[in-house]
Amino acid sequence: MPVLGTTIRYIADRLEIASGGMLTMKVYEPRELVPSLESLDAVSAGKVDASYSASGYWAGKMPAAPLFSSVPFGPETAEYLAWMFEGNGMKLYQQMYDDAGYNVKAFVCCVLSPETSGWFARPIESGDDLRGLKMRFYGLGGRVMEKLGVAVTLIAGGEIFQALERGVIDATEFSLPTIDQQLGLYNIAKYNYFPGWHQQATLLEMLINGDAWESLAPDQKMLIELVCRDGIVRSITESEGTQFKAMRENADRHGVHIKTWPPQMIDLFRSTWDQVVKDECAANAFFKTVYDDMTQFRENYDLWEKTAFLPRN
Amino acid sequence: MPVLGTTIRYIADRLEIASGGMLTMKVYEPRELVPSLESLDAVSAGKVDASYSASGYWAGKMPAAPLFSSVPFGPETAEYLAWMFEGNGMKLYQQMYDDAGYNVKAFVCCVLSPETSGWFARPIESGDDLRGLKMRFYGLGGRVMEKLGVAVTLIAGGEIFQALERGVIDATEFSLPTIDQQLGLYNIAKYNYFPGWHQQATLLEMLINGDAWESLAPDQKMLIELVCRDGIVRSITESEGTQFKAMRENADRHGVHIKTWPPQMIDLFRSTWDQVVKDECAANAFFKTVYDDMTQFRENYDLWEKTAFLPRN
Repeated sequence: MPVLGTTIRYIADRLEIASGGMLTMKVYEPRELVPSLESLDAVSAGKVDASYSASGYWAGKMPAAPLFSSVPFGPETAEYLAWMFEGNGMKLYQQMYDDAGYNVKAFVCCVLSPETSGWFARPIESGDDLRGLKMRFYGLGGRVMEKLGVAVTLIAGGEIFQALERGVIDATEFSLPTIDQQLGLYNIAKYNYFPGWHQQATLLEMLINGDAWESLAPDQKMLIELVCRDGIVRSITESEGTQFKAMRENADRHGVHIKTWPPQMIDLFRSTWDQVVKDECAANAFFKTVYDDMTQFRENYDLWEKTAFLPRN
Repeated sequence: MPVLGTTIRYIADRLEIASGGMLTMKVYEPRELVPSLESLDAVSAGKVDASYSASGYWAGKMPAAPLFSSVPFGPETAEYLAWMFEGNGMKLYQQMYDDAGYNVKAFVCCVLSPETSGWFARPIESGDDLRGLKMRFYGLGGRVMEKLGVAVTLIAGGEIFQALERGVIDATEFSLPTIDQQLGLYNIAKYNYFPGWHQQATLLEMLINGDAWESLAPDQKMLIELVCRDGIVRSITESEGTQFKAMRENADRHGVHIKTWPPQMIDLFRSTWDQVVKDECAANAFFKTVYDDMTQFRENYDLWEKTAFLPRN
């Protein structure tokens, strides 16, 4: 898979070269070692040394976890990384795992650019058009869709095409245009919506078993930090540099309608998200701590964001 | 200096740790070893092993050089990096040095976020207000200002404050808010303009002597690549995460007016830039090759940029 899968292989290759073969990272396919949704437990217990995933998958164990992966109407890549590394993001992220009793060291090593907002069989003009749809959806955005009357399921990437083909689901979101293209979604659902209000940027994580991490020498620890940072750059450039080609192919060769949400739909998603956040903050104190910290950072960032940039095109 | 100076020291520290002390990079202050504008020649000749600068300073030697540093109305950070690393940018960049006979290997290791557009003693409402101003300006943006009747000088950072204080110049641009703050520009010029149409993103380079580079083992080469990539991430987060604080302080403590250019001024800068580009392309074939390649990439990217992102606030 572009970006999603290429980044971790790229990291592994570069780590081996930079360490002169002293550090090797063997990348297994999803489910080859442990079921995908059990990788956090497996790493923490030391059954495997490391895993590569997205913290959004741990929402059931730690409600704040998705905030370290992707936030609806949340920050784009640069702002998100700034909060993680210059603000309190990384500190809170590690604290979450520590407080929950997981023996892992967390790294960000990949960032996905904005996702598409989903693939539909027909145009979606209003909230009414969403109600009753069966749709695959990930993360906190899925909570928004639920509130809007969508029957949300979280199907793994490899099973989406078949589910769509068989009518188990009516619509789906998954990831970047280049990734969605590989799943062949354009064959069935011809309406591809943008922008991805639910995931303007998505951080992927590498988790390393805490004891394995502590057993490393300082130069080895630094090498792992460096390849994760390298993975961030690589995923930014691969994300940003290749999507237009997939979009163009979808439109020109596969008859896909590239649609942008009308403003009233964006407003609807946003106001529904505001309710979801309110509920989550009321239900979980650490979710509130993290969300408030991110919000404070973003309010400060706002002055910069509003003045520093030229309009986009 | 934030970002500008911190990134190279950060890289040097991390390189030493990651190599277990086998590779060290001693960072000298500007002019400590060689005059700043002679560093390219010094590295190429092997008088020093490496330099850290911006290719915009080599415009007199290679007209296309500024295109690898910052382009008026050019790409922002993510798009620029995508062109460099996924498009033809890095290839053309190295080719430029090779064709000009320089024995250097070029790396990008720092990216500055949008600069402020400059510091003025009074509001600038029209092109008439610019004409006759004596202003410090860097890079291709300076060519635009010249065409608009500004008397442009390129004074080094350390001398800007005094020049402004003594009336040698009436106005100046330099860099990011945090960097300009350290120069104390707010003490004299109280009108700080945004957005920086002339430098929405600025790449800084590390040049390594070609023979020194070839003498390195594969793991050492990889380490240098990795710390440069790490420098890119670090400069993105430091740039993006700290500017709002400097802007707020300028406004609240120092009485600075944070101004955004009225649309007619942006139009004037843009149409003048279009003339500058036309002249440069006519005068230099390689400039045209590089500019055309970047433009083609950006035209493709446009489809993505227009659809993938939510509006900025």
